Amino acid sequence: MKTILTYGTFDLFHIGHLRLLQRLRALGGRLVVGVSTDEFNTTKGKHTIVPFADRAEIISALSCVDLVIPETCWEQKADDIKHHQVDILGMGDDWRGKFDDLSSLCEVVYLPRTEGISSTQIRNSLRMLSAEHVRELKQALDLMSAIVERFD
Amino acid sequence: MKTILTYGTFDLFHIGHLRLLQRLRALGGRLVVGVSTDEFNTTKGKHTIVPFADRAEIISALSCVDLVIPETCWEQKADDIKHHQVDILGMGDDWRGKFDDLSSLCEVVYLPRTEGISSTQIRNSLRMLSAEHVRELKQALDLMSAIVERFD
Repeated sequence: MKTILTYGTFDLFHIGHLRLLQRLRALGGRLVVGVSTDEFNTTKGKHTIVPFADRAEIISALSCVDLVIPETCWEQKADDIKHHQVDILGMGDDWRGKFDDLSSLCEVVYLPRTEGISSTQIRNSLRMLSAEHVRELKQALDLMSAIVERFD
Repeated sequence: MKTILTYGTFDLFHIGHLRLLQRLRALGGRLVVGVSTDEFNTTKGKHTIVPFADRAEIISALSCVDLVIPETCWEQKADDIKHHQVDILGMGDDWRGKFDDLSSLCEVVYLPRTEGISSTQIRNSLRMLSAEHVRELKQALDLMSAIVERFD
């Protein structure tokens, strides 16, 4: 049985996250997931909707995940690989090449992400739904109609 | 081992969904979850961000869930209780009293939901994030108002 390690934020948990984790688990058998803490995300200028404790709890509840650890800094990966006796570090291919320096410690693989699904895209769809925008746009249209009428 | 049955939409999967499912599972041992189809939700005037197939796949991936079935209509519950040899129908307490007529077939329990967490609240937080958009629209509106005033 091989041990796979991956890292991620997993904000607004969605099917793309799940499929990536399932494909990582299928590489070996035991999947360890480092979930980024809110503090670490803040240093990256990244702010999540869902706080760390809830993101970690959701990832822990998946049958394809064996262990969740907090990801608190960029530098912990080498220690995590040794401590958890990791055979494969697996990341989404948006990180391609970024962790090749760890290939002296374990195999490093990059898996394709599910096309067209990301937390950002979910956030954007939700923004489109936002009623305030619709209301403001209506006001803008009314004003523009008023302007057009003045010129008639 | 008791079999528990519950139903839900589980749009934008969150910690409140997870905790309810875990508490239901803890009532007996085997948890069957009816996930509302998009067609059924449409008849209720409810539209989800995440399509049925993805919502069902996420619920299936949880270690506390043993079986996912589609929920296609209000009337299927009695058949589901018989077919899956259900001991307990468990629902969130926002449904309190609504399924008491099924208590001749199995035990019916209503569990409290996690305070302060719902898909609606997640949607609302996301709307707050869209403040940048609103700000830009407001600037456009102010400009248009200024134009209109010139003509008054």
